[in-house]
This record gives sequence, C-alpha cells and structure tokens, in this order.
Amino acid sequence: MTANTASNRAISQDDIDYFARIGINIVYASEQQLEAKYNTDYFGKYHGSSQAVLFPTTTEEVSKILAYCNEHKIGVVTQGGNSGTAGGAIARQSEVILSLRDMNKVRDLDVISGVVVAESGCVLAELDEHVREAGYIVPVDLGAKKRCMIGGNVSTNAGGLRYLRYGTLHGNVLGLEVVLADGRVLDALFSLKKDASGYDVKQLFIGAEGTLGVVTAVSIALAPKPRSSQIAVLGLSDFGKIQKAFVLARQNLGEIISAFEFWERRCNELVVQYEKNPSPLASPHEFFVMIETRGSFERHDVEKMDAYLEVLAAEGLVEETKVFRDADEMERTWLFRSQMAEAHAKSGCMHVYDFSLPSRYQHDLLVAVKKHLTDAGLYGVAGAPVRDVTIFGHIGDDNIHLQVVADEYGGIVEEVMEPWVYEWVGSHGGSVAAEHGLGMHKGKFLKYSKSPVVIDTMKSIKQMLDPNGIMNPGKHVERA
Amino acid sequence: MTANTASNRAISQDDIDYFARIGINIVYASEQQLEAKYNTDYFGKYHGSSQAVLFPTTTEEVSKILAYCNEHKIGVVTQGGNSGTAGGAIARQSEVILSLRDMNKVRDLDVISGVVVAESGCVLAELDEHVREAGYIVPVDLGAKKRCMIGGNVSTNAGGLRYLRYGTLHGNVLGLEVVLADGRVLDALFSLKKDASGYDVKQLFIGAEGTLGVVTAVSIALAPKPRSSQIAVLGLSDFGKIQKAFVLARQNLGEIISAFEFWERRCNELVVQYEKNPSPLASPHEFFVMIETRGSFERHDVEKMDAYLEVLAAEGLVEETKVFRDADEMERTWLFRSQMAEAHAKSGCMHVYDFSLPSRYQHDLLVAVKKHLTDAGLYGVAGAPVRDVTIFGHIGDDNIHLQVVADEYGGIVEEVMEPWVYEWVGSHGGSVAAEHGLGMHKGKFLKYSKSPVVIDTMKSIKQMLDPNGIMNPGKHVERA
Repeated sequence: MTANTASNRAISQDDIDYFARIGINIVYASEQQLEAKYNTDYFGKYHGSSQAVLFPTTTEEVSKILAYCNEHKIGVVTQGGNSGTAGGAIARQSEVILSLRDMNKVRDLDVISGVVVAESGCVLAELDEHVREAGYIVPVDLGAKKRCMIGGNVSTNAGGLRYLRYGTLHGNVLGLEVVLADGRVLDALFSLKKDASGYDVKQLFIGAEGTLGVVTAVSIALAPKPRSSQIAVLGLSDFGKIQKAFVLARQNLGEIISAFEFWERRCNELVVQYEKNPSPLASPHEFFVMIETRGSFERHDVEKMDAYLEVLAAEGLVEETKVFRDADEMERTWLFRSQMAEAHAKSGCMHVYDFSLPSRYQHDLLVAVKKHLTDAGLYGVAGAPVRDVTIFGHIGDDNIHLQVVADEYGGIVEEVMEPWVYEWVGSHGGSVAAEHGLGMHKGKFLKYSKSPVVIDTMKSIKQMLDPNGIMNPGKHVERA
Repeated sequence: MTANTASNRAISQDDIDYFARIGINIVYASEQQLEAKYNTDYFGKYHGSSQAVLFPTTTEEVSKILAYCNEHKIGVVTQGGNSGTAGGAIARQSEVILSLRDMNKVRDLDVISGVVVAESGCVLAELDEHVREAGYIVPVDLGAKKRCMIGGNVSTNAGGLRYLRYGTLHGNVLGLEVVLADGRVLDALFSLKKDASGYDVKQLFIGAEGTLGVVTAVSIALAPKPRSSQIAVLGLSDFGKIQKAFVLARQNLGEIISAFEFWERRCNELVVQYEKNPSPLASPHEFFVMIETRGSFERHDVEKMDAYLEVLAAEGLVEETKVFRDADEMERTWLFRSQMAEAHAKSGCMHVYDFSLPSRYQHDLLVAVKKHLTDAGLYGVAGAPVRDVTIFGHIGDDNIHLQVVADEYGGIVEEVMEPWVYEWVGSHGGSVAAEHGLGMHKGKFLKYSKSPVVIDTMKSIKQMLDPNGIMNPGKHVERA
C-alpha cells in the first residue's frame, strides 16, 4: 500500500521558491529557531526535523499547497496550536509543516440558531469568548484552551472537561471544510442540525489527526451560555466512594451537571508544588472530586446542590466539602484542575496515557501499573527511575489519564510499560486513546482495542483519500 | 463504476436451496403475500418485486448470506420495521430482502454506565421499555416507535421528537456491529463514551440506509429516565410568534426542554378527523406548539414552566394555553402529535418531504409551495388534484415536514413539485433529507444540497465498501 511507504521526499529550494511565488508566507528558518516553536511538542517529548513552516491565509492557498505536495510527494504535517500530547502535529522526518495559525477568522455566527462557522486557526478560548457575547459557549473545553485551535480540537476529536454535559464533537460538529490530499476542497460546511442525506463524510475527518486532509473551517452547534454555575470540591478516602458520589450526582443534580472530575492525592500535591496554587481543600485526601453545575435558574441550582451535598454527608461518603459560587473562586478552581498535566510535566519526564476504561477497572489499572513497575525494579525503591504514577480523569466519560513521571523520556520505563499497558487496557474493554489521539506512535497499539476488520477499513479509507500518503505520513493507523 | 450498474441478477431456486441448506429461515411466498408485508412500504407509496425474504437469527448467518450474495452478485435490501417514508427498505426490482426481525436480543445493559447493546431487530418502543426498568431511556424517539427497529433508526440516522434535548445518533451511538458486503464482520461494538483511536469507521453506516453493509447490532449511550415531565400546548396566530416563543423557551426552560414541536391548523384538523382524537386545545388556531420538559426535580420544573407561560402571556404571544401534567394526558397529547403523518396518509396520497431548513424560511416554503401548485392549476380550485399542503415539524432542530396530499401518488403533482422544491430548499441553505433518508429516489436531488466533491467522496466510499454494488442497489447516493 503506497500510503504505508512514507517515501516522501524532503522539501527543496525549488519547492520553497514555488510556494513563495504563489504568495504563501513561509518560515524557512535555521533548525534552532524551528526546533523551539514548531519541531517540538508542548511537553518537550517529541522532536521533528521539518525545514519549513507554511502559513496559508485562505482555503485556496491550502488547496494550492496540497495539490503541489501531492504531485511532488512531499509529506505535510498540519499544525494548529501544537498543544497535543501524542506528537501528532510534529514532523516525523522532514515533512513540511502547514500551520493554520493565520486562518483564524470567524466566518459566521448565527445568533438565532446558535451555530458558529470558524476557521481552523481560531484559538479555542478566543472563539469561546467571541460566542459568549452572543449568549453561547463552545461545547468543548480543555486545559489547553488558550493555546489549542478549533481545527486541532476537531482533528484530534478532543473530549475535554464538559463532555459529560455537551457530548462528542461527532455530534456537535455540523459541518467541515476540508482540503483533500489532492487539493480538492470538500465543502461540507453545513450549518443545520439534522441531515440524513447521504454518508456523513465529514465524520471521517473528526479525529483523523490530519492524515486524510486539512480541516480548514468548522461549523459547530453552540450551547447556551449558562445563567448560573457553581462548583463543589469533595475530599474522599477511596475510589469506590467516587463512583457512589457520581451515581448520586446523576440522581440529584440531573440535567444541571456539567463536569465531574477526579484526581488523587499526589496530583493535588504536584499542582500545589509546581504551579504554586493553593489546594481547594484545607486537608489532604486520598481522592478529590470536582463537580460543576450549569443551569438556567440560580436558586434551583443552589437548592439541588445543597440537597446533593446533604445526601453525600448522610451517606458518609465525604471527608471534606467546599462549594464555590464566586466567579473568581470558580475560575481559580478550574485553573487548579487544568494545570494538572503541566504540573506533572514540570516534575519530570511525563509519560502520559489517555485511556477509555470502564470505571470499575480504573483504580485496578493504577494498582496494576505500580505493581508492574515495582516488579521491574523501576518504582518504589530509592534511585528508581519512576518518580510518580498517578491517575486523574473524567468520571462519567470513563476517561482516565495515567501519568508515569520518570527521569527521562522513553528508555527502560517505556519499554516496560509498552505494549504491556495497552494490552491491559484492551483486555479490560478499553480504548488505547480516548481523547488525545494516536499521534506519533500509538498506531501500532491500536490492535489491542480495535478488531482487524476495523483496522483494515481504516487503512482502506486512508488509501482512498490519500493514495500518495502525503498527509501526516507515518502517523496514526498506517503504522498499525 | 460497478456500484452504479445495479446489474444484479434475480434470486433463483438454487440460491434458495443454498440458504435453506445453511439453515436460514425463508419466506418464499406468492407475490401477493409478499406484497402486503414486505414489498410495500407503510404508507403504500412504494412497491417492490422481491421474491424472497430471509430471516437470519445471528450475525454469522447474515455473514454467510452476504458472502454468498456478493459472490453471486445478488442484490440485498435490508429491512427492519419497514416504517420508512422514503422507500429505502423496499426492493427496486427483485433483490432479496434481508429482514432483521428475528435478530432482536438485548445483548447487554450496563446499568452503571447506562449503555445498551442491542441487536438491530429490537423494536424501538420495546427497547425503550426494557431500559426504563433500569432507570434509562433510549435517546431517540419517533412516531413509528412501536413498529420501527433500532437498526433501521441507526441506518436512516433517525432524528425524531427529542433531538433538541438528546442530539444526534452520530453522538449517541457508541459502537456498531456491521456485516460488510463481502460477509466480513466489522466488530466496532465499543461501549465507552470517548474514543480517539483512529477513524470513526462506524459513522459511515449511520444514515447509509443499508447501502454499505448490514448493521446487526448497536451500542447506544442511554439518557437517564426523567423524574419529572410536563407538556404545554399553545395556540398561536402566526409563525413569527412560534419563533419568539422558542427563543423565550430556551431562556426560561433552559436545560429541561425536551421537545418543541409545531403544527398548523390543518394538521390539527386532520388528526381530529381521521384519528378520532380530540384536539388538545378548545379553540382552533392557525398554529399549535407543543413543549415538553423533562427534569430531575418536579417542583423546580413546574416553577420554570409557570414562569415561562407568564412571560408568553405578558408578551401577548399566545391565544390559548393548556398544561398537561398527568401521565395519561401527556401520553394522549404525544399520541395526537405522533399520528400527524398517518392522518395525512389516510386523507389521501401523501407526498411527504423532510427538509432541514433555517427556521426563518420555513413558513416562506409553505407559501411558495402553495403558490407554485396554484400557478400550475393543481391547488386551490375546485377539482384540483392537491387536497392539502401542510407543514409541521421540530422547531430548534430546523427540521420541517412538508406534506402535499393529492388524489394519487406521483403523476403531475410530483412532476410539478420535483425537482423544484429540492432546488428551493437547497438554495435556501437546507438539506433535501433531514431525518427520513434518501431512500428510493432522493439520491438524484442530492446535488441541490451537497457539493460535487462531497458526492464524489460518497461514491468512492460506496465503491470501497461495496464494489459489486449488491447492498440496496439503485438507492441512496449512487443514483445522484
């Protein structure tokens, strides 16, 4: 299969001259300059060796670039905010980087139907700010919101913090504009909610991590801006109590729950230590839970939350509870939660795993990983290379993040962890990537959670849409 | 393209013998018997000439059937409840019918995570009843729920009555089991909410109307069963007031709105006349609106509804209001709404159109259609073949149903209506099929609402997954 050969050639001065001639903005910098901004991922784990970054400003420019690259078999890596954790936006070799940074216009905002059409380079937080003025919010939110871009969110099928309430991008994205590998523009920028006219072609590009084409614009169904919001943070003594608290939250808070996050003691300590943020609770606890509600009627929401907290207390599920209703306090609490990944990364070399896993197995996973690393002599003894093993995640979405913080990236720790941990997750009904994507090297682990016919069909789709294998070569499923 | 030739041969006695030998239940009836149940659609508009219906009971049997049909180039039409309105489940010629009626097991119901895995032949109402016992509901609901089957709902990408609250099947379906045209089983029966590991292959089959493979089982994220529900029916004097009432409902009812339906005076009259159901309101009105809320706390929900109705009254938007909180009354009101299509069908030959259309154009469409038919001498004068032109639909989903009830199906009325009405809808930003699918003959109108590159990509997908063109031949996009 040609798509698997990744036999693309490196970019030449002739190519650069061509791009300059057709008016594309180019950074053709020394390796050092590129390295810092475009050849290294946010957490410093992945390094590419791209020689040039292109900054198209229009869909037409993207179309010309891809038509040329396809003809000349030049690999293309599309980059948004470069905030991914799986290396999907980093060149494996010398592929040209296509940055969508300068395609950042909001093309349309329908204030009656609540639909925005935005170019891929719109920074998520800025887009959210923009639609808030019209009474809406973007229905996806994540820690990297000030850096990530909406095209990247769609291309990685980002889940994030309020998935529990607003659901998947497969439901919220109404339309896409995509430039295909051969330069043709697939205009599927539909803006209405229901459509049953033919195969839903746009779905293929949600989560394709730039391997099938370049998403240049997205049409998204917005959610109404909440009139009332509040946060409760709970301290609990064991994982089983988190699950009980969640079931009770669904019963008591019902339709107003907007997030139900948890993290463990060590995660809390790392944020306090490395981000200099005070803990939201006065005492240490084995587990922390953060519940947010969003509703339309403050008095009702407060009443529901108070009733819920009373139930929790009566059931003896919590050691400490604090409720935040002031906007600044709520923002600080979210900041604390969203700095968790960065705090880990500051404490050492963070091997981050992002699994879907039935919640009944999530704590078992933590125990199994610690045992596995201890048995290998890598954890729990003086001088061992693994400093921390932690979990945090999104209860209710069955999405858990596992961090193994070590002295270095890769090496013996990665060898002992992989593919062991992917096999463990697959055999417990999970997925090897819940919301971070496959990126640089998870494609080969896909077989632990996907059946052969599914993987074969993915390869056929890749072959159909990118026969020359120029789109993000060597990434994603093609290395499975 | 072979997929376009539809050059499949008719089924022979040898084929029947083979199916019997491998243990498939077969109805190989006289045309008359078949005609009534399997060769005619629910509203009696479409007629096929299939000679045999197969009733597999397992995925393995479906796999054997398709492998054989693919090898022998025998066309296959998959049928669930045969309640579609677009003729998608009716054979065009002599294709064999594959009924999933006997694949009706609930394979799994996870009461903690709220996910059901059900075979395609489960009748929607029965599946809903089953999961209600565990505190959940199926997040799709439609008038035909006692007849339609979940596999058909997925295959037509059914939207239905509570889309506004629970969203699209592209978001709620977590996994599918599909038998591909060549008999391979695509096991994508994932049951967790987040997955970003590779292309979301299952999405292709949602809304494919059996043209890419046979959906044999589905995994669906359920919604919690509401603790409290209420319905308000409003009588209004013009269409603009419906839109105002909707905007106010979003503000005042917020997260508890679960449906916002409208219909016009004539629709109300037809249900009263043909279904012998009393009108939910005492007086006649130009337009009726039915609002349902579903929540977790009855007192709060009642308070929100009362406040909303006060706002409506203060703004002078309604002529009459009635609130239903008794379970039987609510069921009767839903029955009234859900009998609308059938009442039209009983009053004459119903040409039904199912559009996504920005709500600001919906009433314009009705006016334009009436004028167009009047100009052609087909409506509004004594003896004209068109008896009624009506609209009803789902406000907030931008989904409108247009009915043209005539003395006969097809003929001059269809000639005058089509493609004119599809062109009108496409040029106003709509879609030619919102939730009923393309079915028998809407494929050729797809060009009015989809761009050529999108249609080309659909054709490539069809070619990739069904190179011999045996799956529901002559339907859907391949005739575009």
